[in-house]
Order: sequence, then structure tokens, then C-alpha cells
Amino acid sequence: MEGNQYVVIGLGRFGSSLAKELVKLGYEVLGIDKCEEIVNEMSGELTYTVEADSTDEDMLRSLGIRNFDCAVVAIGDDIQASILTAIVLKDLGIKKVVAKALSDLHGKVLERIGVDRIIFPERDMGARVAHQLVSPNLLDYIELSEEYTLAELSVPAKMSGQTLKQLDLRATYGCSIVAINKKSGMVIAPTADDIVESNDIMVVIGTNEQIESFERSAYK
Amino acid sequence: MEGNQYVVIGLGRFGSSLAKELVKLGYEVLGIDKCEEIVNEMSGELTYTVEADSTDEDMLRSLGIRNFDCAVVAIGDDIQASILTAIVLKDLGIKKVVAKALSDLHGKVLERIGVDRIIFPERDMGARVAHQLVSPNLLDYIELSEEYTLAELSVPAKMSGQTLKQLDLRATYGCSIVAINKKSGMVIAPTADDIVESNDIMVVIGTNEQIESFERSAYK
Amino acid sequence: MEGNQYVVIGLGRFGSSLAKELVKLGYEVLGIDKCEEIVNEMSGELTYTVEADSTDEDMLRSLGIRNFDCAVVAIGDDIQASILTAIVLKDLGIKKVVAKALSDLHGKVLERIGVDRIIFPERDMGARVAHQLVSPNLLDYIELSEEYTLAELSVPAKMSGQTLKQLDLRATYGCSIVAINKKSGMVIAPTADDIVESNDIMVVIGTNEQIESFERSAYK
Amino acid sequence: MEGNQYVVIGLGRFGSSLAKELVKLGYEVLGIDKCEEIVNEMSGELTYTVEADSTDEDMLRSLGIRNFDCAVVAIGDDIQASILTAIVLKDLGIKKVVAKALSDLHGKVLERIGVDRIIFPERDMGARVAHQLVSPNLLDYIELSEEYTLAELSVPAKMSGQTLKQLDLRATYGCSIVAINKKSGMVIAPTADDIVESNDIMVVIGTNEQIESFERSAYK
Amino acid sequence: MEGNQYVVIGLGRFGSSLAKELVKLGYEVLGIDKCEEIVNEMSGELTYTVEADSTDEDMLRSLGIRNFDCAVVAIGDDIQASILTAIVLKDLGIKKVVAKALSDLHGKVLERIGVDRIIFPERDMGARVAHQLVSPNLLDYIELSEEYTLAELSVPAKMSGQTLKQLDLRATYGCSIVAINKKSGMVIAPTADDIVESNDIMVVIGTNEQIESFERSAYK
Amino acid sequence: MEGNQYVVIGLGRFGSSLAKELVKLGYEVLGIDKCEEIVNEMSGELTYTVEADSTDEDMLRSLGIRNFDCAVVAIGDDIQASILTAIVLKDLGIKKVVAKALSDLHGKVLERIGVDRIIFPERDMGARVAHQLVSPNLLDYIELSEEYTLAELSVPAKMSGQTLKQLDLRATYGCSIVAINKKSGMVIAPTADDIVESNDIMVVIGTNEQIESFERSAYK
Amino acid sequence: MEGNQYVVIGLGRFGSSLAKELVKLGYEVLGIDKCEEIVNEMSGELTYTVEADSTDEDMLRSLGIRNFDCAVVAIGDDIQASILTAIVLKDLGIKKVVAKALSDLHGKVLERIGVDRIIFPERDMGARVAHQLVSPNLLDYIELSEEYTLAELSVPAKMSGQTLKQLDLRATYGCSIVAINKKSGMVIAPTADDIVESNDIMVVIGTNEQIESFERSAYK
Amino acid sequence: MEGNQYVVIGLGRFGSSLAKELVKLGYEVLGIDKCEEIVNEMSGELTYTVEADSTDEDMLRSLGIRNFDCAVVAIGDDIQASILTAIVLKDLGIKKVVAKALSDLHGKVLERIGVDRIIFPERDMGARVAHQLVSPNLLDYIELSEEYTLAELSVPAKMSGQTLKQLDLRATYGCSIVAINKKSGMVIAPTADDIVESNDIMVVIGTNEQIESFERSAYK
Repeated sequence: MEGNQYVVIGLGRFGSSLAKELVKLGYEVLGIDKCEEIVNEMSGELTYTVEADSTDEDMLRSLGIRNFDCAVVAIGDDIQASILTAIVLKDLGIKKVVAKALSDLHGKVLERIGVDRIIFPERDMGARVAHQLVSPNLLDYIELSEEYTLAELSVPAKMSGQTLKQLDLRATYGCSIVAINKKSGMVIAPTADDIVESNDIMVVIGTNEQIESFERSAYK
Repeated sequence: MEGNQYVVIGLGRFGSSLAKELVKLGYEVLGIDKCEEIVNEMSGELTYTVEADSTDEDMLRSLGIRNFDCAVVAIGDDIQASILTAIVLKDLGIKKVVAKALSDLHGKVLERIGVDRIIFPERDMGARVAHQLVSPNLLDYIELSEEYTLAELSVPAKMSGQTLKQLDLRATYGCSIVAINKKSGMVIAPTADDIVESNDIMVVIGTNEQIESFERSAYK
Repeated sequence: MEGNQYVVIGLGRFGSSLAKELVKLGYEVLGIDKCEEIVNEMSGELTYTVEADSTDEDMLRSLGIRNFDCAVVAIGDDIQASILTAIVLKDLGIKKVVAKALSDLHGKVLERIGVDRIIFPERDMGARVAHQLVSPNLLDYIELSEEYTLAELSVPAKMSGQTLKQLDLRATYGCSIVAINKKSGMVIAPTADDIVESNDIMVVIGTNEQIESFERSAYK
Repeated sequence: MEGNQYVVIGLGRFGSSLAKELVKLGYEVLGIDKCEEIVNEMSGELTYTVEADSTDEDMLRSLGIRNFDCAVVAIGDDIQASILTAIVLKDLGIKKVVAKALSDLHGKVLERIGVDRIIFPERDMGARVAHQLVSPNLLDYIELSEEYTLAELSVPAKMSGQTLKQLDLRATYGCSIVAINKKSGMVIAPTADDIVESNDIMVVIGTNEQIESFERSAYK
Repeated sequence: MEGNQYVVIGLGRFGSSLAKELVKLGYEVLGIDKCEEIVNEMSGELTYTVEADSTDEDMLRSLGIRNFDCAVVAIGDDIQASILTAIVLKDLGIKKVVAKALSDLHGKVLERIGVDRIIFPERDMGARVAHQLVSPNLLDYIELSEEYTLAELSVPAKMSGQTLKQLDLRATYGCSIVAINKKSGMVIAPTADDIVESNDIMVVIGTNEQIESFERSAYK
Repeated sequence: MEGNQYVVIGLGRFGSSLAKELVKLGYEVLGIDKCEEIVNEMSGELTYTVEADSTDEDMLRSLGIRNFDCAVVAIGDDIQASILTAIVLKDLGIKKVVAKALSDLHGKVLERIGVDRIIFPERDMGARVAHQLVSPNLLDYIELSEEYTLAELSVPAKMSGQTLKQLDLRATYGCSIVAINKKSGMVIAPTADDIVESNDIMVVIGTNEQIESFERSAYK
Repeated sequence: MEGNQYVVIGLGRFGSSLAKELVKLGYEVLGIDKCEEIVNEMSGELTYTVEADSTDEDMLRSLGIRNFDCAVVAIGDDIQASILTAIVLKDLGIKKVVAKALSDLHGKVLERIGVDRIIFPERDMGARVAHQLVSPNLLDYIELSEEYTLAELSVPAKMSGQTLKQLDLRATYGCSIVAINKKSGMVIAPTADDIVESNDIMVVIGTNEQIESFERSAYK
Repeated sequence: MEGNQYVVIGLGRFGSSLAKELVKLGYEVLGIDKCEEIVNEMSGELTYTVEADSTDEDMLRSLGIRNFDCAVVAIGDDIQASILTAIVLKDLGIKKVVAKALSDLHGKVLERIGVDRIIFPERDMGARVAHQLVSPNLLDYIELSEEYTLAELSVPAKMSGQTLKQLDLRATYGCSIVAINKKSGMVIAPTADDIVESNDIMVVIGTNEQIESFERSAYK
């Protein structure tokens, strides 16, 4: 289990969202930004906030950053500040340093200086939205492997009222329904007699091809 | 089924990633950006690219934008350009306009002028990364409802070699394993005798509390 | 009858003139601008003045803006601030929101987000001045319809001393004189025996062609 | 009668609107701006357009500006350029120079260097809109004198179907109806038996107090 | 005789030199500049100094500027500020307003708004230096008329020891020596027997041609 | 006698005036400026003009600058460029280098690097104008020494019609009239019977005190 | 022996000096800079020059950079470009990458991403100059170890004409003279009878204290 | 012997390194910079620090700069400030002024205004690093003359264990070993029986050709 204290450096859209979610999940978060206005705005939302230049090692040391279990470098558009901050954090001996990368090259430098996890939020989100765009019934998905996907799909009108047996996804498309989210509650591991209705949401597992072929015929 | 042609306006990190993924998924994509350098860089990756000011209705009309099925406004940091582009696209009669919002207020304006879907990529990604940070074994997840989550979890060392019956998640924590991703292949709807091993990945469904409590004791 | 309280946001040339006229007409006006210098300068002229960022909903709420009957968004050249301010005002529930538009596109967005009345001061004033330029005797005018105009015209030297009967505008040009503004007082609905003199001003009603043809021959 | 040729210097919102209206009224217009982009955009709308620095006397002379009957200095926000352009135009011997002023001080300078007419479009429009805001039925108006106003007013529901005799404006409020704009046509100098209906528009003449008091009771 | 109080607006190189010379000549000088640093630097050198925006009429009035006999507008490079300041000073009723012009056009505007004297320091100094450059013995000069010049010339080596009779300037070149500045003292209206020596300085009066021809042969 | 060729570097107000005066005096002038626009404007006025960076020694050498007899560094506001240009010119072996200084410190550096003559145009002109301001009849003057001045003074009304004997300047004030500039021609070394009239201009020589005391009583 | 080909990226003062010295030493050098002007200036001095953005991996690959034996990152003030360039070079597989660091933090990042040698030219030169300042006779020196220094010292006047035996440095100060640089030639390993004279230069080896104490008494 | 007090103006990378080394060598140093942040940072490292504009003579005088024995102008990139500061220091009468030059032209100006020593740190360091790059075993060197060099070389593996007699450098290459730096201590003027080993460092004196040819064969 991870420790209880996080420091998030850079409180832009990505960093502030991450920091606020951590607070919501019950963790203590110190937010650092070099912009006074942003720090003031976040001071009511995070456990602690400080206005500081994160490339100033003495400053970070005086804040006791080394006692934090995990530091997230979420600096917006300044690659240099991101790199210098990351190396200062590693030098301070922080166990886990996570950083947002703005490009592949930036990511490579972060990796080389020892950053433990590198995130490409916009790139990843761009790819994720692309999938949802081409499959309008696809609400969300997890790529389990190169081959398998787990998809959350809304039930199309023409399926409404059918039992899983009638739909017979496994036979026709090869994929399985592992849960049905109905207004009345979640049906986990549904049986052949369970009925899907409009507004229900199915959780389907299968290969990319199986799910795609299901979507194509079912939702046309 | 959605049509075959997408126009993506704004080819920054989010827009370019989205556009390239659409191409990879087999769709035709027209990428538009007002920066020549970016357009040149993307010209080998997308079906068509154009350097243009997207708030110029005549320009968009001359590009035949109205024939595209879906337009994505992925403009980086210029809220005004984003709003004006969105209204031009709606006026041109494009069926589906998707836009990236930079703030709640921006999102509200986009909604009011008729944008069909509004995305907050950095905010969403920030929240998503927060969950993964606090649960290092959590590889990915889908929030099925306010209450239920579907989580992709790596198998901790101390579970290795146990059958699902031995683990008895359902009895102890209330959550179910709907698939096990093993090197040898995906096991969908595993039985009580299936064994989990280090490096396997489990797909678990349950309420937030069930999964959290499972994580807390299993991964300590 | 409209209520007694107005808020005017943006105190540039247009906004400050509008706000001062409202005060002169006996109404209470709260003026808001983000520029301290402008606010100081107007503080002696309006009922209340505040230096504030009008896109900050919390700020506007704390000012009790929702109790005003009418808000005018007179922001100078910042389309984005104009749009965001307008949507905040509508969300606060203000009954009547009036906004100045800088372009047709800007006007369209304002309309779509629910602004009640949209004004194009420079465009309208440009057209109005054009009419006065081509008719130097035209002091002011109202376009009553596509066809009819009501014009305020100075009396040319060569008409001086003539009775309306002698002028016989109705027979010759088809237009009527509805009032004569004489130094000695206003003559409303003048009779055929009323005399026009140099420095008198006539109020004439007629079709555009009638008035134009009258002007052309009378003022040559 | 003014001549046929106008030169408009500065093609911003005010200048371009003025120039286009002049063209619509059948006059030849040369538009000058120092911004290439604006000149290109207007080249299809005006008789001639030129990209030039209007403070360059040689340039203006080479354009034959001295042959124009009237020049309008509609320069946006550059007081210095406005003043220098105006003096160049006067020196070139143009009969009538009209200029837009941005402030009282600017107006004074223009007056002193001999500009024939000085316009304050935003200030005037601000005052005009203020009147319309406080009298929502007031569509337009002309201030005939300090005392008298000619107002174009929509007919309120409760008056609908009444004859002018029944309304008896003259007796009750002291003001006269000089025209009624009805869907069926304009009724000039209406008689006591003419009826006003919803959607009709009345043209009323009277003192400010008379019209205000009429509005107050009639439109409540 | 001019009054005792001067106000100098703009304390750059020209204005500060002028203001300091006035103080040296025994007059009271109020120096105004909008730059705090410059005002501080000059505060020990002038009678009074104020940091103020000279286009702000209220500010100038509150300083009692109207009681000064003469105002000098010595504003450096801001033509607009120069013009607006000059008109404010004239409106305040100052008897004599002198202004520095940066170009002919600027000079024309200043003249038209009623500035009493217009100075072109750099243009005049450029011409003056040109004359001195081409005549290295010319120390200073006054152009008495189109034709006549009064020149202050150093005595060349080859003239040293000669009497004015021997030199016979009047016969040879037509010009007269009106004074000889000798180490021992000034010789005014020298006689034919007065001797010029090296290091003496002659004051010569004559037509331009006479002086030029004298210089050419005497100084070769 | 100085040579025939001058190079003037920096064609701002001072440099261009100087260069044009040299041309008018019959000399060949090469004007150099780094601003293309200025070079174009001057190309019709000077013998040669070149757009060049004057701190580039190779460039100056390729222009054959070393063959010029005299170079004037009239660079506007860039002290560094002025210094570097001056040293390049000295290194090229130009006999006489004249430079405009912007401050005392700048002047000292120019002197130390061997500039032959240093000019402070705005400072000198400021002092000169100060003298003229306080003596409105003083048209121009030369400071012959610390003690003596030669002044060009207009004749005041009350002196008009008097002979020099009647005026008796020498007895009363101690100063002498060396010339009278009359409409009818220049009177050099006037006699006691010569009459001065309104509009005549006197050239007076005397000590500062003599001239000042003359002015004070004569022009009151 | 090192290879024959060097690439130097960044042709500022340090980089261009280094590159030109390499050429002088007989090596082939490719100079890269993103500034066109600098590249043009250096094109005559280096074997090859290219204007390119060194963080563009494709660009560097197309230049065949991978075939160079050694790359020097001499980028001036852009830490980010320096870091990104260094990682691109390492990724291209260049055997030896040398980089200039602007700060300790910058140096640490360069080290961590695998740069083979890191240079702090200004810091090192600062220290070196400090030594020479405090010992004006010290022409140059090498720090052989923490303790020992090899110093090149000019011979002071008072030593002139003495034999090494007379000076007896070894007995008095403990340090040895290993060479004497005389006008007539270099005397290596001089004997006790060799004489030092003014203008000779001695090469002395000894501990820091020995040399310092020698300097202190010998040069006073 | 040089005095004890130094003033260093400009505390960038070069200046701060120089100043800190002087302190380490036991001298008092006053550091001056116009940037507050830099002054604060250095205040703990130097004897005195002051934030000041070094071109302000009064300021420097008030700091008692004239009592310092030596001033170093280490200003980073502002040639103008460097020149003006240097002349102020010379004028204050400081005995020794040392300055960093950014270019040859800059160096020439500094020389002409009397700077005692001019340093080109980046140019010199560039050349020095070039030598080390091409001879990887060359640790440091002193150019004793055009012909002779004193080189500090690491001992290559293949020489390890040999006596100087066996190596016979003098016979084969003509150069002499004047010292061997061994872990066990420095061997000055080694004898023929001394042995060199890996990790030893030799100090070699010889002509450039001798050393180069030794390096080429010994280190291949």
C-alpha cells in the first residue's frame, strides 16, 4: 500500500485535477506552483499549498519534500522546469517520482534521469476519445492486451427486451457479457435468461475483432 | 455506425493523438491547424491536412467541411477560437461536433451553442492517474456507476498459486473476478479452480468499497 | 416598465456613455470594469463602481448581480471575456442581458447562449453617419420601414419665407411635413399657411424615394 | 448636393460600415487602411481599396485624394495617426473632412486643425441605447430640441383596437401621433377614427415629459 | 520683458538642458515628466519638479499651470502626447506655449492648434554642425539674412602678426572684421593697425560668398 | 580646407538634417542607416545611400569608407552601436571622426577611443533656446567668450526713428552696434547718424551684463 | 587515437572558438546552429556548416551525425535545447558526447542522461582568472593535484642575472625550476649554473604553499 | 604583491566563479550586480554584495570603489554596460581594471579606454577544450611559447611498469618528463630508473611536434 502523502508540482488543468482527486480519495496533498494566483485558488482544495520555484533544491528541502512518499511533476508547458524539477526530486531521495511528458523526447529524458513513471495525458486521452468517437455506443473501455478489450456499451434500441440467450453474443460474435448495469442495479455474471433493455449498459469482453464486429451489426 | 470522415481542428498533443488514432482505426481524417509547421509535420500521418484559420466560415465552406460526419474542435489554449470555430461548424450543418473544453465555463458555452459532446481531457486524465497512483496495482479501471467499478489489477506475489476458490473474493470482499489475463491467454469467466499467478492480471467487478477493501488487504 | 437597476460591464467609450446616460435618466447603475484606472475615473459618475473580473461567477454572485433587472455587456475588444461574461450572467438568472457584438460571428454566439438583445454600435453608427454625409441637410432620421423614412431636415435658403401651400411638398414630392421646429417653438401638424424660414428645421415623412427626390431638388 | 466621391480612411468596424453604406447609397468610395488583410477583405465591397499609410502626404497626393469631395477619417484607436491624417487632408485642400474622435481632447484637436465635422460614434450610440433600454417600447427616436422628441413606439397590448379618439393622447398626455406604421401600410397624419393594433408602430411627437408620462402609464 | 516662471514638460536631453539653463539664468522653473526616475534626478536642479501625465487637464489645473507665463512642451518621441499636451495648455489660457516638433507634419499640427513657437532642435543643430564641419575654422555663426552671415573664425597660422591693413579683407574679399577676441581682451571695431595673431578669433561680417571665398584662400 | 566627401552614419532627425545641409553646401555625402525605410526615403536627397550595419568592419571596408575625409556618427539612441561604429571608423584610418553623444558618459568613451569631435545636439540646443525664451527680442547669439556676447536683436517700437547718436548705446549701456539689417540692405559698421526703425535688426556686441541691461530697459 | 570527425552544436563564443581550434589542429568539423546568420558567418571557417534544430532527431539522422566520432553540445543559454540535443545524440549512438553545462543542476541532468564529459567553461575560467589576478607574475598554471601546482612565472627584476644556485629555490622555498623560457630558446631541466634574466619565464613545480611563499617574497 | 581588496561587477557564471575563488584564496571581495535575486544568492559567499547599476558613477563613488586595488568587469551580455562601467572605474582612479570582452570589437574598445587587462573566457576555454578533445590523455597543458608545450598526460596501459630509461622519450620523441604524479606522491625531476604505472600522470615538456608524435604512437 502506497503512503499517505503526495506532493503535486504544477497545478494546471492536469495537476489540479489529479491533486483534487487524491484529496477526495482521502490522501494528504501538498500542491506547489510558481504562480501565486493559482496557489491562492487551490488553497481551499488541497491539504497544503505553497508558491515556489520547484527547481530550487534548497526551497524544496526546506519544505520537507523528502518525507513525501510520492511526487508528481505535472508542470504544464515548460520542459526545462519539468526536467530540472524531476532531477531535484530524485536527488532529494523521494521514492516514487511520476512526471507528465509533453513529447517523446521529453519522456526519454525523464526516463533516463530516473523518473519512475511517465504519463502522456493528452496523447492517451486523444487515443481514448478516438475510440469512443468511432463507436458512439462505446462509453468506456480497457485494453486488456494487444488482443483483448473490455468494453462498456449502451444497449441499442433493437436489442431491447431480448434475453442473453436470444442475443447469443458468444455464438455469433464470440464475445461475452460479464455484467449488465440496469437502473434497478448491477447484474454481475448475468445468466442466459437475463434480459437487456434500452438504457441498460453492458460490459462485454472479447477480442478487438469480436467486439468490433458485434458493434458493427448490433448498432447499425 | 458513424460515417467514415472526420475533421480534427487543432493538432496539438491531444488533437494529433486523436487524429492519428482515427487513421489507425481505418478512418479518413482531415487535420486543420493554423500553424504551418504543425501542419507540415502531420501531413504524412493524416489523410489530408490544411493550414487554415478555423473561424473563417468561407474557408471552411470552401474545404467542403459540411460533408464530414463529425468534427472535433481540439484547439489548445484559445477559448475564443474554440467557441467561434464550434459555432461556425454548427452553422455549416455538421451532424456531430465534439469539442475539448478548458474550463467549466468554456464547457457551458460550448454546450449552449449546441456542441454535441464536450471533453475535458486533462481534468479526466488527472483524476484517472490519481486513482492509479494510490492503487499501484490498479492498471486501469471503468467507473460503471456511482457505486460500481470494474478494475484491472495485477496479481500480488502473496496470492500467486492460489485458486479462485482459495482466494474466495466473493465471500471475503464481495467482488467477482470476471477474467484473468494470463501469459498463456485470456481466461474469461474463470471457474473456482482457475489459478492466479504472479504477472497475471485480474479483471475484478464490485462496488468501490469492495474493491478498495480487497486492494487494501491483498496488496499490503 | 423596466426596473430601476442596471449593471454595465465594461466601461469603455460605449459602456461609459451608456452608463452615464442611464444615470442622467434617473436610474441606478453599477459599473464594472477590470481596469482600476477606469473604475476610479467613473466612480464619481455612476451610482456604484467595482473593479472586478466579470468572468468570475463567484465574484459576480457576491456583488448581488442577480438582483439587477438588466445587465449590459459592453466589453470593448475581448470577445472571449464578452462571451464568458454573458453566460455567467444568464446562469445567474438575470432577466435581461444585452451585449455589444464586435462581429457577426460574435453576435451569433451571443444569440445562441441566450443574450436577449445584441447591439452593433459601430456598425450601426457607421451606417447612420453615411446617410448624413450624403445629405448634408439631413440632421437625423428614423427608418420607419423598408420603404418609409422620417427625416429631420434643415430648411434651405431658397425655401425661406414660403408657406407650406407654396412649397406644396405633398403634390410635388409626395412627402408630408409633420412638424416645424422654429426658434419661436415647435409647430406640430402645421397647416398650409405656416411659413418655413431659414434656420427652421422640418420633420418630413415619406418614402425613401420621395424624400431623396425632395432633397435633391430643394437643396441643390 | 454633395459630390459623388468619398474617401474613407480606416476600415475598422465603424469605417467599413460607413463605407459600405455609402456604396449602397450609390456613391463611389475609396477605402484606405494600413492593414493588408483588411484591405483585401474590403476590396470586393468598395469601389476602390488601397493599402497605405495615410500620414504620408506624398502617398495621398499620388492617389489623387485632392479630387475627392469628402474624406472621412475613421481610424480606430491611434489618435496620433488620426490627427496627422486629418491635417494632411486639410493641407491637400479637401473641401470636407469628417473625423471620428476617441475622446473630448482628441475632438478638440481635430476641431482646432480645421476638421469640418467630428463624430463620437461610441459615445453617441451609448446614449442612444440607454434610452431604448429604459423604454423597451421605444424603437428609435430623434431629439428635435432640448424639449421635444419624436419617438417611434410599439403599440402595447392593452391599447390594441382603440381609435385615436379613444386614446385621446393629446388631451391626456399632450403629445400627438403623426403616423401609424401598420402591416397594411403607413398611415400618415392619422385621423381620430384610425385604430391602433398590436404590432402597429406609432410615431409620436411631444415634449420629453409628455412622451415619458405617456409611456409610463400606457406601457405599464 | 518675459515673466519669471516657466514650466517645462518633458525632461529628456533637450528639455532638461533647457530647464537647467533657465534656472541658471535666474528664472523659476517647474519641470514635469511622467517618468518618476527622471523627476527624481532633476529634483535637485529645478525650482519644482512633478511626476505627472501632462495630457490630464485636471492634473495641470491643480498644479496651477495657468499662472505660468510660458510653457515649453519638450516631450521626446511621443507625438500624440505632445499634441494633446499643447492643446490642454492653450485651453488653460497660458500666454506663450513653445513646443518641440519631431517632423514637419508634427510642426504643422502644433501651429494649427495655436502653439506660439515651434522648435526643431535636431534639424537645426544638424544644419549648424554641417556648416562647422565644412569650415573647420568656423567656430560659430549667425545667418543675418539670406545673403549675410556673421562668422566667428579662428585666425590661421599664416595670417599671424599681420595688421588688418595688411590683410585688407574688405578690398580682397569684401567682408569686414567687427571684433577681434584676443587673449588680452576683446577688441571691438578694430582699426587698420590692429594685429591678428594665432589663437585670436575674428568676428567677420559679409555675404556668404565673401566669407566663403575668404575662408577658402585664407585657410588653405 | 576639408575634403569633399562625407559619410554620415545614422539618418535620424539630426543625421539627416546634417547630411542634407552638407549636400546643399556642395559636398558629396554617403548616408548609412540600418533601417531600409529610412535609406529609401533619403536616397533621393543624398549622393549615395546604403542600408548597412555600421559595426560590421568588413561591410564598411567594402564600401571604401576609408577614402572618406570625414565620418559623422549620428546614431540615434543606441550608445553601443555608436561606440562600436566609432572605433571601427578610427581603425579604418579615417582622418576625422565626429560623433553625437547622448550623455556625458557616452561622450567620455567617445573621447577616449579617439573621436575627434563630440557633439551634444539636444543639450546645446536646449541651452540656446533657453536664452531666446527669456529674451524674446534675441533672435540669435554667439558666445564670443565667457564675458562677451554678440547678439542679434530686433528693434523695439519705442526706438524706431532714432539715430545711433540718440540711442547712445555705448554711453548708456557700454555695448556697440556693429551692423543694422534693414529691409533696404545691410549697414555694416553704422555711423552715429544711421537711423534704426521698427523691423530692423541690430547686431550688438558687448559683455553679457551690458547686453542684458540694454535689453531690460530697451524692450520693457 | 580519437577519430577525425567532430560535430559541434551551438556556434556561440565557446562553440565557435572550440570548432575553429579543432580545424586548426587538422580535424574535420561539422558546425550546427539554428541561427542562419551565425551559420553563414562560420561557413568559411569550418569544414561543413548546417543551419538546423538539433533537437530534431530526423534532421540529425539525415545529416549522418551517427558517423561522427565525437559530438560537442555547446549550446549557449537554452538548457532545454542542450538536454534534448544531448539525448538525441546518445540515442543516435555517438560514442563520445561532450556538453557544456550552465549550472550544477544542468550538469547533473547531462550526467544522468549519459553525457561522457561535462564542461563548465565560464566557471572554470572564472577560477583560473582569479589565480592570475592575485599573482600578477603567474602567467599560467596546472593544478597537478590537490597539493602540487606547476606554475609559469615571469622573472622579477630583482632576480635578473642570478644563477639558479644563487636563487636556491629548492633550499629556501622547496620548489624546483623545471624549465626556463629564454628569448634564446627553451632551457629544459636547467642546471645550477643557468642564469635567469628579466623577461625570462620560469616553469616552477612545487606545493601550493611553496610556490605561494616563493611568489610572496620574490615578487614583492 | 597585489592588494587585498577586489570588486567584481557582474555576478553571472564567470563573475561569480571568479569572485568565489578570490574569497577562497583569502581576499576580500565586493560583488556588484544589478539583479537583486543574484545579489541575494551571492550574499553568503562574498565578503560584501551590493545591488547597483554600475554605470552610475555617483553610486560607485558612494560605495568607496576608488579604494579597491582591482576591479573586474564581468558583465554578461551587455556590451554597453560593460564599456560604460569600465570608463567609470578608470575615471574613479582604480589602479587595475580587468574586463571580460564578448567580441574582438568589444575588446578593442576596452583597450582604448584604458582597461588594463582584457579576458575572452569563452574563446579561450573553447580553444583549451579543443586540445583536450583531440588528445584524450591530455589532462591539461600550458603553451610555453609558440613552439614549446608543457603537457600533463595520463600514462597509457601499454607503458605501465616501464622505467623512464626503457621508455627513452628523449631519444625517441625528443621530449622530457619533468615530474610524475603517482598515488604515492609527486616525483619531481625523476631519474632514469623511476617507473611509470597505469593511473600515474606524467608532466612532459617538449615542442608541439615532439609531444604530438609521442602521443600518437604511445596512446594508439
